[in-house]
Amino acid sequence: MSDPRADLQLAREVLAAQPFSSLIGARLTEFRPGTATLEIVVRDELRQQHGFLHGGVVCYAADNVLTFAAGTVAGPDLVTGGFSIEYLRPAVGTTMRAVGHVVRSGRTKVVCRADVHVIDSDGGDVVCAIAQGTVSVRQRVAGTD
Amino acid sequence: MSDPRADLQLAREVLAAQPFSSLIGARLTEFRPGTATLEIVVRDELRQQHGFLHGGVVCYAADNVLTFAAGTVAGPDLVTGGFSIEYLRPAVGTTMRAVGHVVRSGRTKVVCRADVHVIDSDGGDVVCAIAQGTVSVRQRVAGTD
Amino acid sequence: MSDPRADLQLAREVLAAQPFSSLIGARLTEFRPGTATLEIVVRDELRQQHGFLHGGVVCYAADNVLTFAAGTVAGPDLVTGGFSIEYLRPAVGTTMRAVGHVVRSGRTKVVCRADVHVIDSDGGDVVCAIAQGTVSVRQRVAGTD
Amino acid sequence: MSDPRADLQLAREVLAAQPFSSLIGARLTEFRPGTATLEIVVRDELRQQHGFLHGGVVCYAADNVLTFAAGTVAGPDLVTGGFSIEYLRPAVGTTMRAVGHVVRSGRTKVVCRADVHVIDSDGGDVVCAIAQGTVSVRQRVAGTD
Repeated sequence: MSDPRADLQLAREVLAAQPFSSLIGARLTEFRPGTATLEIVVRDELRQQHGFLHGGVVCYAADNVLTFAAGTVAGPDLVTGGFSIEYLRPAVGTTMRAVGHVVRSGRTKVVCRADVHVIDSDGGDVVCAIAQGTVSVRQRVAGTD
Repeated sequence: MSDPRADLQLAREVLAAQPFSSLIGARLTEFRPGTATLEIVVRDELRQQHGFLHGGVVCYAADNVLTFAAGTVAGPDLVTGGFSIEYLRPAVGTTMRAVGHVVRSGRTKVVCRADVHVIDSDGGDVVCAIAQGTVSVRQRVAGTD
Repeated sequence: MSDPRADLQLAREVLAAQPFSSLIGARLTEFRPGTATLEIVVRDELRQQHGFLHGGVVCYAADNVLTFAAGTVAGPDLVTGGFSIEYLRPAVGTTMRAVGHVVRSGRTKVVCRADVHVIDSDGGDVVCAIAQGTVSVRQRVAGTD
Repeated sequence: MSDPRADLQLAREVLAAQPFSSLIGARLTEFRPGTATLEIVVRDELRQQHGFLHGGVVCYAADNVLTFAAGTVAGPDLVTGGFSIEYLRPAVGTTMRAVGHVVRSGRTKVVCRADVHVIDSDGGDVVCAIAQGTVSVRQRVAGTD
């Protein structure tokens, strides 16, 4: 039986070991069986030419939270196989929050979905993109399957 | 009849107006009817925890080059609708090059494909991801359709 | 204000006007704002070489229910733009049920998700595929947006 | 060293063992290392309500040709993991031809792309959809990797 706080701490160390996630400024705010959440404080460096968050930031968040969500059930030795993303509206706000869920955890792959939200300074919260993808399991942690 | 050098120059100005593309360090090296190419010099800030280029950098490049490729035929007023990406192998190299092609240019949407290559210091070149997606045309430039 | 029974009846007429849906044997069992459900009774003609439902039947159901779900909010003049599907497990059962939901209904496009279930003779119900896609609106029904 | 005619014959037997492919009326016209082609003669049963080929037929063809393309390099024990499809235009014609190509053949998965063409009675040939997807290899044929 794992300790939820220890799991979140360990997952945060994995995120901290990703220089690109540090460059983006992503934080892991949730990591429990089946669900992970990443948050990014919006700053000007993350925008595109019209002032919206760049699609590349949105798809970074989708990609990474799909993989971390898979990691909540399948251990750390994972390779993201691919994903698809649909942009719903321009991403405007002060914080971006990407929430990933495990849909199916198999022996060799985990399929996840993600919603990417943007939250404004008034607390308004809209989904700006949805994603789904497959994460391949390279080596199962003993006892997880 | 447009001037190819002027078109490339204009497209580079659009890219330069994207703060996130500057943060990534992306350069536009090709922009002609039907094709656009983005290049990124690999540096440590763009990696994940195992030293490979982060998937978020790869999908940034795919997302942006799909949109620039659409822009070669449909003008600048575009919104990326969504895309899918398949990762083929870990992205290791000194330069990432994303090449986008227009597959179909319609009145309201442009469908494109992209290949993301990584090039190593010996000139070795492998495709590390493929993508396809749809770019919506908000307002057609007169005479292009 | 529309009459839900009349809407379901009208949507069933659209489905009945699709010869391929008749060939498959699809029935529309739900059609209300934001959600549509298609059901297919499994028969041997719909299988692949190992006795599972053919992936083509699963993706037919996903494709069509994404479009019908969009039709619950955006009227009948729609064109499916594209979608992605992840297969979760072999599709074995007596009935396939595809449920589509609207995630975002915009002026020119509707983004939907779908879950494809298989139900066995004991009432066991598992999701065998998930999908997401975009449906383009060719002409808005007055007053729906 | 395999015999190309024997390989095509064997692959046709796999297709013939899929009752749903018989219901659709698909024929395999090419099966050589890296490429497979499926053809479907258009008939009224395959249409939707406006007389075009139903999207479900187009995605059946994409799904199946992606898997057969993978089979040209990875043997018969395959499971389609998922794919994405972009519809480019209504599918009108007398024959549909889906051509699949292997992009990357790894030890446990094969990534493929496909183009779905429609050919009219004058020989006109247009691409009506593009797809990409991943096929998982359950058991490698000795010596193929």
